[in-house]
Amino acid sequence: MTSMDYSGRQERLQLELQRLKLDAILITHLPNVRYLTGFTGSAAALLMGSRPVLVTDGRYAEQARKQVAHPRVVINKGGSLKGAAREIAARKLSRLGIEAEHVTVATRSLLARELRGSKLIAPSGVVEGLRMLKDPEEVDAIREAVLLGGRLLPLVLRALRPGRSEADVAARLEYAARRAGAERMSFETIVASGPRSALPHGIASEALLPKLGFVVLDYGVILHGYCSDMTRTVHLGKPSGQERGWYSAVLEAQLAAISVVSPGAKLSEVDKAARSVLKSSKLEKFFTHSTGHGVGLEVHEPPRVAANQDGALKPGMVITIEPGIYVPGKGGIRIEDMVLVTSRGYELLTSARKDLVEL
Amino acid sequence: MTSMDYSGRQERLQLELQRLKLDAILITHLPNVRYLTGFTGSAAALLMGSRPVLVTDGRYAEQARKQVAHPRVVINKGGSLKGAAREIAARKLSRLGIEAEHVTVATRSLLARELRGSKLIAPSGVVEGLRMLKDPEEVDAIREAVLLGGRLLPLVLRALRPGRSEADVAARLEYAARRAGAERMSFETIVASGPRSALPHGIASEALLPKLGFVVLDYGVILHGYCSDMTRTVHLGKPSGQERGWYSAVLEAQLAAISVVSPGAKLSEVDKAARSVLKSSKLEKFFTHSTGHGVGLEVHEPPRVAANQDGALKPGMVITIEPGIYVPGKGGIRIEDMVLVTSRGYELLTSARKDLVEL
Repeated sequence: MTSMDYSGRQERLQLELQRLKLDAILITHLPNVRYLTGFTGSAAALLMGSRPVLVTDGRYAEQARKQVAHPRVVINKGGSLKGAAREIAARKLSRLGIEAEHVTVATRSLLARELRGSKLIAPSGVVEGLRMLKDPEEVDAIREAVLLGGRLLPLVLRALRPGRSEADVAARLEYAARRAGAERMSFETIVASGPRSALPHGIASEALLPKLGFVVLDYGVILHGYCSDMTRTVHLGKPSGQERGWYSAVLEAQLAAISVVSPGAKLSEVDKAARSVLKSSKLEKFFTHSTGHGVGLEVHEPPRVAANQDGALKPGMVITIEPGIYVPGKGGIRIEDMVLVTSRGYELLTSARKDLVEL
Repeated sequence: MTSMDYSGRQERLQLELQRLKLDAILITHLPNVRYLTGFTGSAAALLMGSRPVLVTDGRYAEQARKQVAHPRVVINKGGSLKGAAREIAARKLSRLGIEAEHVTVATRSLLARELRGSKLIAPSGVVEGLRMLKDPEEVDAIREAVLLGGRLLPLVLRALRPGRSEADVAARLEYAARRAGAERMSFETIVASGPRSALPHGIASEALLPKLGFVVLDYGVILHGYCSDMTRTVHLGKPSGQERGWYSAVLEAQLAAISVVSPGAKLSEVDKAARSVLKSSKLEKFFTHSTGHGVGLEVHEPPRVAANQDGALKPGMVITIEPGIYVPGKGGIRIEDMVLVTSRGYELLTSARKDLVEL
C-alpha cells in the first residue's frame, strides 16, 4: 500500500492550532494518533504544536521506531499518559488543547495537576474535522476494504440455510474475511433473521434461520486500518406482496438519498431524500434511525447524515447511505452502501447487487 | 445460564452512594450498566439512587424491556445521554456522581448545563470496585468461558505449521471459537512467532511461522458476556538449551506467583514472587510488564497485579498471572492462567497443559 501523507496532516493540524490559538494539543484518541503519525499501538499520547513528541510505553518501543518518522518518540515506563504529562510540565504552554470527546474527567484532572498556570482548552473534533476529508491514499485504502467486503457477499449468501444459526453464518463470514486478509471485522457482525430482522442492531445470535423471512446482513472488514460497512437484506423463501413492497420502498429511498449526494448538498437533505420516499409509502414511522455516517479509520465517524445536521457535503467525504424499516414482530429491511463525495457529485464505492435476492 | 443477582448488586451500589454522600450516580460505562441491570445494548445511561431509571434509545426499546427488570426503562429518541440529562434536570440532586474514568470532558459539560445548582462529583471506580469481587453466578460464567478457551488449544496447536501465516492460525482459532458458541474473542488474538515472539503485543500478522522458534499464543473468548484470557508459548522444532532454560524460568516464575495467591496477600507480593524467580536467573530485565490483571465482563479490569499495587487480594477476585520475558531479536515466552481467589487460597481456573510443547 502507498504510504500515507503524515506530514501533510500534521501541517493541517498546525493550522487548526493557530486558528484555535493553542500552543499545543494533546491527542490521546488512538485513531487520531494513527491518522497523524501512522502509529498503531494500543497505548500512545501525541503532543503536537510546540516541540511535538509521541509518547508510548516499553511494549511499543520497537514498533514506534519503525512506524513513526515524525515527531520524536519518547518511551515512558510509567505509561504514555504520565509521560505526556511530564512533557507538558517541561514546556511553557499558555493554552493547551485536549480532545473534549475523548479525554475523561480523571485524565483531565491528572493533566491539570501538571499545568503550572497554563490553561486547558477542550475543543471538539479537531482531528476528526481533518479526517472527514479523506486524502487520496485513504480513499484507495477504503476502496480496497469495500472491495474485500463485497467479495465476501456471495459466500455469505451460500451460507444462508434454514436451520443454521445466525452465529454460524457470521462465523463462516468472519473466517473467510480473515483468510482473505482482513485485519478484523469493523464491528460485530449483524445477521438478523425472521422477526429478529426488525431489530436494527440484531447482532448474530443462536437463533436459527427460518424457512421464510427476511435476513439482514450488516458487516464490514478492516484492511490497512480502514473500515468497510455494508448491509444487504435477502429473503429466505418467497416474499409476500407486502414484503416486496417494503423492499422496493427501502431500495427506492436508498437510491433517492444517494442521488442527492454532491458537494454543497446539506447532510439533512440527504436524510430527507430517503425519508420522503418512505413517507409517501406510509413507512416513515418504521425508519427509526438516521440515514448514515462517515467511515474511515473508524466505522462510525463524522459527519452524521441526519435530519438535524446542517453541515454540507464536501469532496473527499466518505459516508454510508443506509435507510431501513423495522416492522415490529414482522421483519425489517436495510440497504447500505458507502459513497465517496467527489468534486462533481459522488462515486458509489459499494458495488454488490441490491435487487431483492430470494434464497 | 443462571440469572445474575442484579438486585443484590444495585443494593451494594446504594451503600456506596451513602458512603460517598451522593444522591445519585450516572453510570455510562456499558459494562457497568450491564453488571447492574443485565442490559447489553450499545447505548445506555443508568441513573441510580434517587428515582432510578435506565435510559436508552428507540433501537433498543424491545431489548431493554426484555432484559431489564429494574429500574424503570425510559426510551429517548434524542439518545441516552440527552435523555439522562433530562431525567437529572427533573430531580433535585445536591450531589450527583459521574464516573471519573469514563465520562469525557464533553459529556461532563453537557451534564453540567442541566444541573441547576447540584454539584457534580467524579469518584473513581465505584462500580469497578463492586465488580472486583465476583458473585457465584459470575464465577460460573467465567469458568465456562475459561473452559471453552482451553478446549480450543489443541486445535490451535494442530494449526501451527511452518510456512502458514500467523493470521491464518488466528482465523482458524476464531472460527472454531465462534462455532463452539463464543460470542466473540475477548481481544485481538496474539500469534507471535520467531523473533516476533519478543513483542509482548504481537497481534497475529501476515508473518509466516518459522521452522524453528517460539510461538506465543494469547487469546480469549467471551461467553455470556464474560471473558477468558490465556497465554501459552510453544516451540516449533527443537529448542536450544538456552531456550529451555528461559522457558523453565518463566514457568517457575508463574508457578511461584500463583502459589502466593490467597486472601490478604498483597497484589505487589504476587508480582514480586514472579519477578524474584526471574531475577535469580538474571532474566528480570526482560520482564517488561506487570504480572496480571482482573478479568470479568472486561478482559482488563481492576485489580492490577503490579509492583506498585498495595491492595490485598480478596475472595471472589479473578486475576491473571502472566509473567513473560522478551529477548529482543531472539524470542519471547509468556505463560498465563486465570486464578480465582477463594476464602482459603486459590483455585486455578485454566487447566491447559503448560509444559514446553515442541511441534
